Amino acid sequence: MAFLQTYAQRATKHANPAARHLLETISRKQSNLAVSVDVTKSADFLSVIDTVGPYVCLIKTHIDIIEDFEPVLIDRLTALSLKHDFLIFEDRKFADIGNTVALQYSAGVHKIASWAHITNAHPVPGPSVVTGLASVGTPLNRGLLLLAEMSTAGTLARGAYTEDAVRMARANPDFVIGFIAMRRMDGFGVRDGEVQNSEEDFLILTPGVGLDVKGDGLGQQYRTPMEVISQSGCDVIIVGRGVYGNPASLDVDEVRRQADRYRKAGWDAYLDRMKGR
Amino acid sequence: MAFLQTYAQRATKHANPAARHLLETISRKQSNLAVSVDVTKSADFLSVIDTVGPYVCLIKTHIDIIEDFEPVLIDRLTALSLKHDFLIFEDRKFADIGNTVALQYSAGVHKIASWAHITNAHPVPGPSVVTGLASVGTPLNRGLLLLAEMSTAGTLARGAYTEDAVRMARANPDFVIGFIAMRRMDGFGVRDGEVQNSEEDFLILTPGVGLDVKGDGLGQQYRTPMEVISQSGCDVIIVGRGVYGNPASLDVDEVRRQADRYRKAGWDAYLDRMKGR
Repeated sequence: MAFLQTYAQRATKHANPAARHLLETISRKQSNLAVSVDVTKSADFLSVIDTVGPYVCLIKTHIDIIEDFEPVLIDRLTALSLKHDFLIFEDRKFADIGNTVALQYSAGVHKIASWAHITNAHPVPGPSVVTGLASVGTPLNRGLLLLAEMSTAGTLARGAYTEDAVRMARANPDFVIGFIAMRRMDGFGVRDGEVQNSEEDFLILTPGVGLDVKGDGLGQQYRTPMEVISQSGCDVIIVGRGVYGNPASLDVDEVRRQADRYRKAGWDAYLDRMKGR
Repeated sequence: MAFLQTYAQRATKHANPAARHLLETISRKQSNLAVSVDVTKSADFLSVIDTVGPYVCLIKTHIDIIEDFEPVLIDRLTALSLKHDFLIFEDRKFADIGNTVALQYSAGVHKIASWAHITNAHPVPGPSVVTGLASVGTPLNRGLLLLAEMSTAGTLARGAYTEDAVRMARANPDFVIGFIAMRRMDGFGVRDGEVQNSEEDFLILTPGVGLDVKGDGLGQQYRTPMEVISQSGCDVIIVGRGVYGNPASLDVDEVRRQADRYRKAGWDAYLDRMKGR
């Protein structure tokens, strides 16, 4: 099973360039921490990223909530990703028919495919959402995550839905590099008589991770890095406000301290998982 | 059942201002036609809308695919909606947690809540997606459609998923005005022992409608207005390229002819449905 190998071992074998890049970065920086930067001002966006950059493998963005977006923001984001050695994951949650997602991914003001190493999609439209995104992303060496599960209360991404999401990923292993999910997806969606490819390696990125909180009052639920990485076998923890607090009054030293605290908690949980091999 | 009443009768009774506005517009213009304007250039966007405007109750937009978007485009779109008497439906397919969708709806470059009378969301995150959007949209008299079904091949919006979507709408009848679906949702999601409110009136807006074509090669499937409005009991047909063809070489007379042809086909199908009362 892929998740019982080291990140470095998995990096040497993965077929997708964005997945390889992410696994190498995790291994090199000893960080399976992704920070979700949910802020509405460009200045806050850049200062949070510049502060947490050294501690993360991945920055998760919502480019469509930034009010003063200008194309130069992408140049600055890309420069920070090179300076601090992290990948960029635009959390767009594409969820439309193939023709439309291809345009949403490549065009518009934000031109996501041109700068985001990784993006994600809901499987709900059926296979055309993957086909449409792959037509844009594959030539650019991008990777796609499917939302097989969500961390919110009352989500409909469960049961047969999750199984169908995993099957959709298996049908497109060159472009779909993994899942947003709460646990490993190995064995999910395997029908009677089918055998899962033992080389299959889908990355699991997991939101709803916190060291100090249990919920946000709007349906978000939290677990610790140890629960997520060691017990549930996920690969990357996604943390937001738990790291950077209020972006309008950023305490840089405190944010660095929190980012390294989450990085270390995620890495310790990974070492704990590896002990169990 | 609401769909056996006239659009005008339903307009007098609906609790949501955006739904009332839409039902009144349909009745006044004798048009249940929504045109989906999926173009990437502002000039094409405005010229298609100015051409089809007299024939539609609703213009469906994907504002995030427009490459040369500037805030003034919204002023022009709003002016056209007043000139031609139609509502605006941003087909954003929100599908994130409550905090995030509230920001995506209100903020960013596009500020969707400030101009789109109607938007839509996937129910997959659970009830927080509705709560988050309602916190922004309700004070602005907006309305939300939930995607209970999709017109694409292999969609996961079926069965228990669709039933859950309808329950989520019933829990928020002031803000959720209806569904993107392929048929009426009456009776869906009603549990044993429950009785559906006989005054319930969810609008059904239906994509995948064509008079001349059967599929687009990327998973979209088509039905006729008679199938959709009369047989399946839907309220609004959504048509795209079938009306305006290639936006880069717009044949204005031909587009008007097609728009009126679809308007008439949709209205005839409605009259056919009313005959059956």
